[in-house]
Amino acid sequence: MAGGRAETRKWSFTPHQRHGAGPAPLPAVFWSGAGNQPPRRRRTWLQSVPSRLCIRACSTNDSLQPQCPSLAFSGDNSSTRGWRVMGTLLGLGAVLAYHDHQCRAAEKSPHIYTREEVRSHSSRETRIWVTLGCEVFDVTEFVDLHPGGPSKLMLAAGGPLEPFWALYAVHDQSHVREILAQYKVGELSPEDKAPSTVKTSDPYADDPVRHPALKVNSQRPFNAEPPPELLTENYITPNPIFFTRNHLPVPNLDPETYRLHVVGPPGCQSLCLSLDDLYQFPKHEITITLQCAGNRRSEMTRIKEVKGLEWNTGAISTARWAGARLCDVLAKAGHQLCGTEAHVCFEGLDSDPTGTAYGASIPLARAMDPEAEVLLAYEMNGQPLPRDHGFPVRVVVPGVVGARHVKWLGKVSVEPEESYSHWQRRDYKGFSPSVDWDTVDFDSAPSIQELPVQSAITEPKDGETVQSGEVTIKGYAWSGGGRAVVRVDVSLDGGLTWQVAELDGEEQCPRKAWAWRLWQLQAPVPAGKKELNIVCKAVDDSYNVQPDTVAPIWNLRGVLSNAWHRVHIHVTP
Amino acid sequence: MAGGRAETRKWSFTPHQRHGAGPAPLPAVFWSGAGNQPPRRRRTWLQSVPSRLCIRACSTNDSLQPQCPSLAFSGDNSSTRGWRVMGTLLGLGAVLAYHDHQCRAAEKSPHIYTREEVRSHSSRETRIWVTLGCEVFDVTEFVDLHPGGPSKLMLAAGGPLEPFWALYAVHDQSHVREILAQYKVGELSPEDKAPSTVKTSDPYADDPVRHPALKVNSQRPFNAEPPPELLTENYITPNPIFFTRNHLPVPNLDPETYRLHVVGPPGCQSLCLSLDDLYQFPKHEITITLQCAGNRRSEMTRIKEVKGLEWNTGAISTARWAGARLCDVLAKAGHQLCGTEAHVCFEGLDSDPTGTAYGASIPLARAMDPEAEVLLAYEMNGQPLPRDHGFPVRVVVPGVVGARHVKWLGKVSVEPEESYSHWQRRDYKGFSPSVDWDTVDFDSAPSIQELPVQSAITEPKDGETVQSGEVTIKGYAWSGGGRAVVRVDVSLDGGLTWQVAELDGEEQCPRKAWAWRLWQLQAPVPAGKKELNIVCKAVDDSYNVQPDTVAPIWNLRGVLSNAWHRVHIHVTP
Repeated sequence: MAGGRAETRKWSFTPHQRHGAGPAPLPAVFWSGAGNQPPRRRRTWLQSVPSRLCIRACSTNDSLQPQCPSLAFSGDNSSTRGWRVMGTLLGLGAVLAYHDHQCRAAEKSPHIYTREEVRSHSSRETRIWVTLGCEVFDVTEFVDLHPGGPSKLMLAAGGPLEPFWALYAVHDQSHVREILAQYKVGELSPEDKAPSTVKTSDPYADDPVRHPALKVNSQRPFNAEPPPELLTENYITPNPIFFTRNHLPVPNLDPETYRLHVVGPPGCQSLCLSLDDLYQFPKHEITITLQCAGNRRSEMTRIKEVKGLEWNTGAISTARWAGARLCDVLAKAGHQLCGTEAHVCFEGLDSDPTGTAYGASIPLARAMDPEAEVLLAYEMNGQPLPRDHGFPVRVVVPGVVGARHVKWLGKVSVEPEESYSHWQRRDYKGFSPSVDWDTVDFDSAPSIQELPVQSAITEPKDGETVQSGEVTIKGYAWSGGGRAVVRVDVSLDGGLTWQVAELDGEEQCPRKAWAWRLWQLQAPVPAGKKELNIVCKAVDDSYNVQPDTVAPIWNLRGVLSNAWHRVHIHVTP
Repeated sequence: MAGGRAETRKWSFTPHQRHGAGPAPLPAVFWSGAGNQPPRRRRTWLQSVPSRLCIRACSTNDSLQPQCPSLAFSGDNSSTRGWRVMGTLLGLGAVLAYHDHQCRAAEKSPHIYTREEVRSHSSRETRIWVTLGCEVFDVTEFVDLHPGGPSKLMLAAGGPLEPFWALYAVHDQSHVREILAQYKVGELSPEDKAPSTVKTSDPYADDPVRHPALKVNSQRPFNAEPPPELLTENYITPNPIFFTRNHLPVPNLDPETYRLHVVGPPGCQSLCLSLDDLYQFPKHEITITLQCAGNRRSEMTRIKEVKGLEWNTGAISTARWAGARLCDVLAKAGHQLCGTEAHVCFEGLDSDPTGTAYGASIPLARAMDPEAEVLLAYEMNGQPLPRDHGFPVRVVVPGVVGARHVKWLGKVSVEPEESYSHWQRRDYKGFSPSVDWDTVDFDSAPSIQELPVQSAITEPKDGETVQSGEVTIKGYAWSGGGRAVVRVDVSLDGGLTWQVAELDGEEQCPRKAWAWRLWQLQAPVPAGKKELNIVCKAVDDSYNVQPDTVAPIWNLRGVLSNAWHRVHIHVTP
């Protein structure tokens, strides 16, 4: 859901959109951490909003309603420097003195609470307390200002922040601590300090080592894509550079003790399958392309900010997968296709600090259709699944968005409704460009299953300089739902005239074109041209095409970015 | 393939594209017949090509190689006036005298041939003869100049022209006869004159009476669409205004003697089903939208000329169809789904003068899938099929282009290859905008089956004037392959900003959304606006969208026209 860069973006502008009111008291310094560049929008925001002092409650007594205001400043990446600059700017030496006084006052007489007392403050009615280290904070007033949304912060209500900060590493910075300090109401009793220390261990510490070629969009959780020039070098993407989209830390599962729980229909026993049990089902092997809904999101960001990881064109890869067919496993458990609509829900063994697993679902009709070839895969390109790709077992749903290919699969059940997972119901849906975070109604849109037709140029790269004479253009094209790519058109003049590219890669079965086509075009560079606007667009066998431009398909989550792909290159004479 | 207007277009410019050489000796007068407006291109062509005399062979002896040249003039719609004007223009009185001499000479001593002799001249090797009335013509030199292409004229080689002229009414004009006169080689023997007279009867004379509201794009064969404002007045299109796309005359079939021939697999007997036999299969009823591949072709024509009927937005309609499921009938005949790819071929009982029936095919996998709900329909909106819509039985293939819904169904067979019908292999395919009639390779593109996502505005109409205040916008949206329309975006400013329209019409089964959604939006007219550029675009449940503009999807046959639909309206204060 949120890695480093995406989280940074979220903190940078969401509150405006969410609450409609004036800018929330967010420190601009949020963007000044190592490697975090401020998004463009920030400058405008800072220019239009005067630096300001925020008056905040800071309890120095045991009242639930804090009465003693303290001052916090938002304006720089160092607390002290911030105060100094602010003081200078406003000519308010007294402000600095007052701040120092308050800090000393808070240090003098901290109120002591037990963990149990803290736990009792877990709702708006009882007020919302959290702990960090040995300190206790009443964040009731901050919940609605939380850039990640109130619901995320509420997950920690009545307990320690550490597990969440470990997951979403953007929090663990001095300026965030500075904000939090405003809300301090006391400290934990000495005997209650231990438990939180245990939970501060880094949940990502056990993540696997990754290939250095991967372009990392987020370290925690790990999200990375292969560079374009490697992406289409092979029809089958090598495992080490297959794009990785994790929502949570990678679980470290023991293949000996691993069990897949398949819930049976009413009146039937559930299955509890070991890996060896899974191997007993007929082994089915298919080549499929897997694409993240957020592939090419960075092009949407250039139109207007969106929430999500900044994927370039590489959140797509192709592998040969092998495993048991889901329909065989479901049949073994006693399931059959029923007349009413039903869904197969998947749960991963990766989970957040509350124990909530990653989850998703697909319609039962697809799961039970042998021709849909949905797999419980245990092999990827002839190897056991790499840990980043779901070891020991993941779901593979040909023609369907990556988000449904649940990794580290722990549980399969058949339900009358779609999965209630956040990722099924509150994410991975498409909306009109007119919908923003104030107006979005997630129930109004269907969860993404089949993806639309897609293509992108991988060579040359945007901004590259090529020799005059002839230019070789390469890329990939794919469509969801088993629809084959039947043609790729390429333009050297921004879309005025077109040439048909040569399709490479494997011919595929009708209605089961699960894998991409690579393509290339060798074209003479028109004489005298100093630059070329290269464009590609694909057509699938239902003759759907890609839209011309990004803005009309822009959406607040930046998914389904499949407009014509464009690169602008220079030509040397 | 060719009705009045389409045929006219073809005659107007095809030869240039087909043969690449200079303009063929086509009389400009071809466009001066009643109701035939010259296409735009003609003017340029006429301006750039001087009027000219064509020296043509006119046999006055029995040699197969004509030796006596005659002169024909192309330039006006009256033979005599043509010669007079030409004579005046060129100052060549002698030309007129020579023409008169030749005509008198031909009249004096016509050579007499039997029909059998004519029949022996049916190839380039033996020369190509045809008859019209009692006259015999050697058209060998004209075959490659035939505006409809050599293959069409070759259908008549060795026989009478009347059946073809009756089908393609554009021929039956004085200036066409004038051209033909150049090639006269003699006359039929008196005893052979009768048969051709029999065949001159109008094959369209027995076509049914049509509703006057229909906007006729071609009378022969009949092709017509409902006006937009009637189209979306009802979710179910009334039978009398359901769009009609005929390729040939409407057969008049007797329901008592009607038989459907279903070819069995090797070793099995074929079925010969009466209507009563068909009624014995379980009756299956579904609402589906049927769309012609050429719907909205007129928008492509505005970019660049295409071949085909000038459909506006009305080559789409919705009905409740009832009949036997094709899978049940095929199963009864002994067919089952096989591992290798196969196709179900359909033949209509409508046929051209050579006896060639309309034909098309769909993949066996779709035909055998009960969920695909392919019907042999005998009811349309609770009535027996109207004659224009296939009485007594037609194929209905939900989610698939209209061209496969074969009407007046006579024969069903399962074949290893697609139908060899012209309409399956040499038409109804999509190509890159760069492909023209010189470069097209019909084998390189798949036949259209599922259609892409589509939508159009039916109210207000382009050019209409509305009152300021509020504007109501209505339209339809549909997608092929059973993919449901999940959203329609409407813009009042040409696509800069969007509003989400309200979807009306029936909720549909997942994966079986065979019918359209009607939609509407009531929106305030922005203050001070004197005109609005209204645009609509739909999204289906695989999140495919319509392309922004027409030019990049333009294709030489003008099919698959599904760019954003745009209407420009005026606002009165």
